[in-house]
Amino acid sequence: MKALVYQGPGKKAIEERAMPAISAPTDAIVRITKTTICGTDLHILKDDVPTCAPGRILGHEGVGRVEKTGPGVTAFHPGDHVVVSCISACGKCEYCRRAMYSHCTTGGWILGNTVDGTQAEYVRIPHADTSLYRIPADADEEALTMLSDILPTAFECGVLNGKVQPGSTVAIVGAGPIGLAALLTAQFYSPAELIAIDLDDNRLDVAKGFGATAAVNAAGGTAAAQVMNLTDGRGVDTAIEAVGTPATFVLCEDIVAPGGTIANVGVHGVKADLHLERLWSQNITVTTRLVDTVSTPMLLKTVQSRKLDPKRLITHRFKLDRILDAYDTFARAASTRALKVIIEA
Amino acid sequence: MKALVYQGPGKKAIEERAMPAISAPTDAIVRITKTTICGTDLHILKDDVPTCAPGRILGHEGVGRVEKTGPGVTAFHPGDHVVVSCISACGKCEYCRRAMYSHCTTGGWILGNTVDGTQAEYVRIPHADTSLYRIPADADEEALTMLSDILPTAFECGVLNGKVQPGSTVAIVGAGPIGLAALLTAQFYSPAELIAIDLDDNRLDVAKGFGATAAVNAAGGTAAAQVMNLTDGRGVDTAIEAVGTPATFVLCEDIVAPGGTIANVGVHGVKADLHLERLWSQNITVTTRLVDTVSTPMLLKTVQSRKLDPKRLITHRFKLDRILDAYDTFARAASTRALKVIIEA
Amino acid sequence: MKALVYQGPGKKAIEERAMPAISAPTDAIVRITKTTICGTDLHILKDDVPTCAPGRILGHEGVGRVEKTGPGVTAFHPGDHVVVSCISACGKCEYCRRAMYSHCTTGGWILGNTVDGTQAEYVRIPHADTSLYRIPADADEEALTMLSDILPTAFECGVLNGKVQPGSTVAIVGAGPIGLAALLTAQFYSPAELIAIDLDDNRLDVAKGFGATAAVNAAGGTAAAQVMNLTDGRGVDTAIEAVGTPATFVLCEDIVAPGGTIANVGVHGVKADLHLERLWSQNITVTTRLVDTVSTPMLLKTVQSRKLDPKRLITHRFKLDRILDAYDTFARAASTRALKVIIEA
Amino acid sequence: MKALVYQGPGKKAIEERAMPAISAPTDAIVRITKTTICGTDLHILKDDVPTCAPGRILGHEGVGRVEKTGPGVTAFHPGDHVVVSCISACGKCEYCRRAMYSHCTTGGWILGNTVDGTQAEYVRIPHADTSLYRIPADADEEALTMLSDILPTAFECGVLNGKVQPGSTVAIVGAGPIGLAALLTAQFYSPAELIAIDLDDNRLDVAKGFGATAAVNAAGGTAAAQVMNLTDGRGVDTAIEAVGTPATFVLCEDIVAPGGTIANVGVHGVKADLHLERLWSQNITVTTRLVDTVSTPMLLKTVQSRKLDPKRLITHRFKLDRILDAYDTFARAASTRALKVIIEA
Repeated sequence: MKALVYQGPGKKAIEERAMPAISAPTDAIVRITKTTICGTDLHILKDDVPTCAPGRILGHEGVGRVEKTGPGVTAFHPGDHVVVSCISACGKCEYCRRAMYSHCTTGGWILGNTVDGTQAEYVRIPHADTSLYRIPADADEEALTMLSDILPTAFECGVLNGKVQPGSTVAIVGAGPIGLAALLTAQFYSPAELIAIDLDDNRLDVAKGFGATAAVNAAGGTAAAQVMNLTDGRGVDTAIEAVGTPATFVLCEDIVAPGGTIANVGVHGVKADLHLERLWSQNITVTTRLVDTVSTPMLLKTVQSRKLDPKRLITHRFKLDRILDAYDTFARAASTRALKVIIEA
Repeated sequence: MKALVYQGPGKKAIEERAMPAISAPTDAIVRITKTTICGTDLHILKDDVPTCAPGRILGHEGVGRVEKTGPGVTAFHPGDHVVVSCISACGKCEYCRRAMYSHCTTGGWILGNTVDGTQAEYVRIPHADTSLYRIPADADEEALTMLSDILPTAFECGVLNGKVQPGSTVAIVGAGPIGLAALLTAQFYSPAELIAIDLDDNRLDVAKGFGATAAVNAAGGTAAAQVMNLTDGRGVDTAIEAVGTPATFVLCEDIVAPGGTIANVGVHGVKADLHLERLWSQNITVTTRLVDTVSTPMLLKTVQSRKLDPKRLITHRFKLDRILDAYDTFARAASTRALKVIIEA
Repeated sequence: MKALVYQGPGKKAIEERAMPAISAPTDAIVRITKTTICGTDLHILKDDVPTCAPGRILGHEGVGRVEKTGPGVTAFHPGDHVVVSCISACGKCEYCRRAMYSHCTTGGWILGNTVDGTQAEYVRIPHADTSLYRIPADADEEALTMLSDILPTAFECGVLNGKVQPGSTVAIVGAGPIGLAALLTAQFYSPAELIAIDLDDNRLDVAKGFGATAAVNAAGGTAAAQVMNLTDGRGVDTAIEAVGTPATFVLCEDIVAPGGTIANVGVHGVKADLHLERLWSQNITVTTRLVDTVSTPMLLKTVQSRKLDPKRLITHRFKLDRILDAYDTFARAASTRALKVIIEA
Repeated sequence: MKALVYQGPGKKAIEERAMPAISAPTDAIVRITKTTICGTDLHILKDDVPTCAPGRILGHEGVGRVEKTGPGVTAFHPGDHVVVSCISACGKCEYCRRAMYSHCTTGGWILGNTVDGTQAEYVRIPHADTSLYRIPADADEEALTMLSDILPTAFECGVLNGKVQPGSTVAIVGAGPIGLAALLTAQFYSPAELIAIDLDDNRLDVAKGFGATAAVNAAGGTAAAQVMNLTDGRGVDTAIEAVGTPATFVLCEDIVAPGGTIANVGVHGVKADLHLERLWSQNITVTTRLVDTVSTPMLLKTVQSRKLDPKRLITHRFKLDRILDAYDTFARAASTRALKVIIEA
């Protein structure tokens, strides 16, 4: 089968690989019909993810059809139409029982990282019963590709952890795909103000189209001052960090109101300053989270009931044999204005 | 009347001062019967608290009798036996309505800071109806002095924010008075493990006497390793920071388990490193809080029902005219083994 | 001044009454500009509310201008534009401190019940600082009349207590004004299904216009069967009881899914059957609540940010001297299709 | 093997039965070392549980050793020392993912009900990976028999659902084994008052020994009045119903304070009156729950850390071949003063 393979720092290629096989009774083989590329895939290519070795088939997102199941799989059968979760969960360990699938002792984020992933014609899914989600008959398969990772990540790490509430004031720092997904799912809770912050005016325009009530261009170092101005000096109840740099994290510290929450979504490569000399008395909460994908069934209901349209995040579509073009388009988002790119197998 | 007055960096003295007077309809004058000294008073003397100007009567803790009330005070009358809260709350502003009295727009921590405090024969209490707490007839006045600040601070900022639960594993970094108060009130929730961490073996011994299930001496830089050892490599569900330095905060980062909480209680003078490059995916929560004293009525019930004995925190007693000795004893805690010192007016 | 006075069972009249006067330092006098009629006012006229004696000026809703304030009022001044809360709250008692203003020991629902109310040119508001809410300069006064009672009641007792969540399934039993207000505010949380249940097809049509995803006519006794059918036999996550009869409460018991919540909003005159022989093992929650009006500031933000349009509840408008017509129109809602009627003073 | 078999209403006997066999890949066979009898077993014998047919081996509690596992079992191996949960959970269905194992679509309470149970030498455990709990090497096996059902039931349905808090006032209606287990586990949260209510003075004496701060004999119909007296007319924050009759449920309604919770634990055979004509405005919560056993790992930690001593619930011990005597002793609890009886296989 065809697969996109990481070949070491900066290198990737389409290779012909053997079909995956069932290796544990709880495995399923899924034929991928659509997959997509995540910012994390680019991090792997930049050699930022030491757990991912050369030779690995990339990808942790996708939808498809169950091809084969191990003898321990009871919830799915060949032919079932499914979403692949980016997080594999055994459903049995201490963390899974606490609904913290991200830290499953034999799962977590392994697809396209420590085991072969979804940017291929077929993929082996460990712990299939608790790592796949059934697609309803009348659903739009492409839309549900967004349920593998980006929507639960934005919703769980940003919106839920950020305790977005009706009437509250929310800032989203970073209007890339993940920040925009947070913008969409924050609206489940009807906040009064949704301030998008980015350096790119195009992305800020998209954010306004997606429901941001204000847009702040962070160039020039006045972002905090602008947010304080927009909030009558009060700051925001929720600051969602969707970039992953020390500066954007500190911006969140600068704009969070007393009693507010900083919900980190960004993947950080280095430490950040936590200004406790000011924040110790501000009654704030800071949260971090690797997505648990426990909200996937709920998100599916919001899509099916038209409260959420994930297709707004999809800007480009490619065939699997053009996946290198897809990577190129996704990597040059500033000029291509790509958000999520769909790859059809 | 006699009062302990801050006279500028490093200087304090007993002065003869005029009796305080009602200046707003919601004021009460309280005759102090017992007060105590807080670590924050020492910070003021070290010139760490810029809001507190020379000439200020210090102290934000105490019990006494209502002497006089303004026309707007309805809940208290002369003669009432009361605890003075360290936090003044108007009960009306946006923050007070959210039970965040610490950020009351006309109150918060003002006593012994921006208005004259309790280390005196009399004190004016602004917003008296919502800043005083009635002492039951059969209560031990001295014990309730601990309800002004140290117990609600340890409980709200450390235990409640730290989400201590039955069966959970808790580390308390710092076994001074505030850490020990956290140790006492954490036991309201029956955690399985309560690990005290300090540099001083005497304090660790006290901690064990107060209910710590393990004691870790942090000298030598092996504290994190010892805690990981005690928890089978898992870390703690709750890390309570009760010191206020970058190093102790980072220790909390080192020992918190995935899904756990760092509850900051310490007063910090400088920023700390937040190791997001590791913690971004660990599903942790960090909280800060200036005490709101919303738990005071509940703490009073736990004292009255003998679930909590605040007198264990009291080590020394002085008359008001010996308050300089009291300060000296409290400041030299390492050698005097002082925890809280009572000053009787 | 003119006032609508309860004159005993079935009797009411416009009377000329003396202007109200400040009687406690925390009182304010408010000149009413707009008021409205509540179903509870009709209950008083039917002699269902024994606490309300003949001679009482009715009404517990309204907006207006502060005319005068007692010496203890600090948050409001003459001329301030305000919403009157149906619940008076001292802000000091045990219940107020727990944000349970409904049970304020010197307040609660007293306006138009045990003290004179708002269906008059002027009204005395006890505990003014914590019972009035400032109207922003650019707000629509008429819309905010709905913030006195119906919106916080529907939201707090129905939506908040009912734990409505994104993707959840909600049934609202009763599509009168309060049920429709629950329907509007439930949408703050983006439920997937919102099923309106009533006996009146007109009201069900209004409900569909207000966002119900399905409408069930309860005539014929098949409502429970229809709801089970709509939910694939599963039942609803939240059943909001907005009628107040034993039969409608039992209907909620019949349609609530395992793990679900029945949130009672209706005012009940008699007991209901609780089918514990079936429900004991169903992991359900039943809640009751007299509105606390703690959500008023939040609701104001949702109105100002256009997440909620309260004017959809207003169907008729009258001058104060035509208030008897307003009562008549409101009481004959089945034929007049009245929801809320505005009375302008 | 020997087994205690239900032979129809009022009849039971020790029978010789075939060893159970693995019938699904996720099954395990457990050799029972200790089991016990539950009030529900008596209900079956009284023909109150229609799902349980004659011929069924009774029992849903016990500890033992894993004898054999199906190919889909990964967490347990032959020889493992385990607690059997009274609730079987697949870990995969919608309810299990919400931690509502009680309503597992292929599990729930099935042991000793719809499949053969634990009052035998061996038992087949469906969904073994998520229905067994490992016993630590240094644990007291007998004590952990109480973790199969009675402790999680009392804790989850009574204490957790009842929101017992430090300083709160709790009444437990019914001082039988389950009420006493609620009494023990309520103390995890340090309530100020714990009022035990029963008709039997012996049981009330036991309750006082277990930590009740007051005991109320409900004979004579004055229980509610006594509780109101004990609480200065205020009522209780939490009323735990641990009997299962209409009268005891209504007693809970009579004693719950505004804002309080009635947590039902009792198994009810008939409906009860819910006095909504009074309670609609009292801001109360009523909860029901079939135990989910999600707290079992936490309870195990509290036992291991000596916060909880389950052996206090054990009054009698029998060999398996004397299980009929054990039933007799348990059924005549009023005279034998039996709480839980251990049966050793």
